[in-house]
Amino acid sequence: MMKKVLVLGAGQLARMMQLAGTPLNLDVKALDVSSNKVVHPITPEQIYGDLAAGIINADVITAEFEHVAHDILDECEQSGKLFPKSEAIKIGGDRRLEKALLESCNTANAKYYFVNSKEDFDKAINYLSLPIIFKTALEGYDGKGQWRLKVAADAEAIWQDMADFLNASTTVNQGIVAEQMVPFDREISLVGVRRINGDVAVYPLTENHHTNGILTVSVAAPINTKLQEQAGTVFKALSDKLNYVGVMAIEFFQVGDQLLVNEIAPRVHNSGHWTQQGADTCQFENHLRAICDLPLGSTALVRPTAMVNIIGEDTIPDEVLAIASVSVHWYNKGKRAGRKMGHINVSGEHELQLAQRLQNLADILCPKAFPDLNDFAKKYLDKQS
Amino acid sequence: MMKKVLVLGAGQLARMMQLAGTPLNLDVKALDVSSNKVVHPITPEQIYGDLAAGIINADVITAEFEHVAHDILDECEQSGKLFPKSEAIKIGGDRRLEKALLESCNTANAKYYFVNSKEDFDKAINYLSLPIIFKTALEGYDGKGQWRLKVAADAEAIWQDMADFLNASTTVNQGIVAEQMVPFDREISLVGVRRINGDVAVYPLTENHHTNGILTVSVAAPINTKLQEQAGTVFKALSDKLNYVGVMAIEFFQVGDQLLVNEIAPRVHNSGHWTQQGADTCQFENHLRAICDLPLGSTALVRPTAMVNIIGEDTIPDEVLAIASVSVHWYNKGKRAGRKMGHINVSGEHELQLAQRLQNLADILCPKAFPDLNDFAKKYLDKQS
Repeated sequence: MMKKVLVLGAGQLARMMQLAGTPLNLDVKALDVSSNKVVHPITPEQIYGDLAAGIINADVITAEFEHVAHDILDECEQSGKLFPKSEAIKIGGDRRLEKALLESCNTANAKYYFVNSKEDFDKAINYLSLPIIFKTALEGYDGKGQWRLKVAADAEAIWQDMADFLNASTTVNQGIVAEQMVPFDREISLVGVRRINGDVAVYPLTENHHTNGILTVSVAAPINTKLQEQAGTVFKALSDKLNYVGVMAIEFFQVGDQLLVNEIAPRVHNSGHWTQQGADTCQFENHLRAICDLPLGSTALVRPTAMVNIIGEDTIPDEVLAIASVSVHWYNKGKRAGRKMGHINVSGEHELQLAQRLQNLADILCPKAFPDLNDFAKKYLDKQS
Repeated sequence: MMKKVLVLGAGQLARMMQLAGTPLNLDVKALDVSSNKVVHPITPEQIYGDLAAGIINADVITAEFEHVAHDILDECEQSGKLFPKSEAIKIGGDRRLEKALLESCNTANAKYYFVNSKEDFDKAINYLSLPIIFKTALEGYDGKGQWRLKVAADAEAIWQDMADFLNASTTVNQGIVAEQMVPFDREISLVGVRRINGDVAVYPLTENHHTNGILTVSVAAPINTKLQEQAGTVFKALSDKLNYVGVMAIEFFQVGDQLLVNEIAPRVHNSGHWTQQGADTCQFENHLRAICDLPLGSTALVRPTAMVNIIGEDTIPDEVLAIASVSVHWYNKGKRAGRKMGHINVSGEHELQLAQRLQNLADILCPKAFPDLNDFAKKYLDKQS
């Protein structure tokens, strides 16, 4: 009765899928794309020598990241086992395709212009007006591959830097997407899931906080229903358009009452890690249910829950575990500055209790390792009190 | 920073410890006591050839069942890594030692008499009066190794059966404990945890229902605080006396306002599986925290939650997963009549919702495989409405 799942990518998302899938009798293995070996997502054990064997031995294939080489995606697609389809994964990995998708669904997003030459660059500035953010079309993540142009005087230098980057890049078909920098109120994201039969379920919206371009804190709590509906409508439109299967995350900028799509991730997402403790069914289980064609689990909020990323640290004080409703999730990765090493989920019966516990957490954690946490917790607590 | 844990026993409890321990960066391996091989608790992968290698490669050793051979326990104890200590595990595996412990702590329990001969048998009947339940001192579980004597006319036949059993038994030091059959109102259990430093935390009491001697349903919901206090006091007394480290379960008979200890399990327990979805920290994580000398996690009830054992079946209808707040946990064991193959956790915001969902579950599951569930759900729902 055991179903075998192969995940393209052997990082923390494959790891958490394995943990969520095991109770459902799913056997989750992972493809380490750098070595082309199929490995156990928790132990470093190698299972098959190559992708071909991994494909043959899988019932279902999925991806934990969108920057999978297209030949790998194509090979998996040919087996008929890949969910979501390679098209959706490729769109998530290319900002130009992403923009085209948003246009085709009439989904609000920041005004943009594609840049491949100095001429495009100048046209983009004219068309969009400053400030503008330039992002690589391919392979950007965690704020990497981005340039911010705020004043005209910097244009020449930034173009030079971008041109050097493009010239040096070995990535085939690399390009730049210029985007109007939107003065947004906050960044929020929606994690949702779609089953093969078209069933859709979305989690409550999550408010996200970044430090140096990397997500540091996400908070899920009862939220503005109008925004939730708006986001849900976008999710439905995009996922239906793609005939999507699995979990997909949509990052939004909130500008007043409006949501602009920032980007789409065709996979389980860091801003959905709170679901492990705060939702009825976690995003990892729901992704697996969807791709294995099982009924979707309820996405209801059980308790207001925050997630704090552990970045560049491989240890935190034990006292963290003494705070009620704190769960620590390590990824067992080698320590490296800026690397996501784990995360901490904190829940409360209500938002005030959550805020208090978050403050307790900030008081214990080293401020050098969690630079913005104390400030965030203080503000959040003030808002609740 | 990874701590290595070896579990004596490679069944579902070791499996669920592995799943709960991985996020905490604990590397949980299991000793298959029948083959003396150290294996991965999820995959069947063999890791070390024997116990000695397992001991050397572990930081901490624990047990998933109390019937571990004493030479194995002694070998582990000598390494200084075994938690709880072998004494506690041995007590849990021998009803005579268990009774002696209860006496030494003045803990209320059913009146009893040890039986090794026909003479003892007759004395037991005199001392206890009918009805009496006779239980093997060693190796009894899930209602196995028990005889019920209700009318004097059956005494001779039951003694013959017991004498045959004792003669045929290859178990060293086997014996019988005769117990007064208590006309109890219900069976409840307390799962608690104690850290090396003496910190204790207990979960809410669970009401247990058995079918043919096997636990079939446990329900955890807000409960009589007086009983909870009484049970907590017993837990504290027994676990302090044993200098216990880890999770321990105590099964009680409730007789009016009084709790009589039925038996003690020096380990994570089937009646605590609901904690995976219904408590702040599940029993598996708390056991690991305790034996690794980490702060205990909160044992607070998050939501009223019931657990339904899947017995002798290796499949259930997919529609079960469509019920909100249902989690299915399979153990990946070969199908065998009467075998615990998995369990289903169901939660509700309040008991009425829980009862409704339990009824939905009973409506879907095959009554042949879950014979008492529908009846239980109906009564529970009636009580809430």
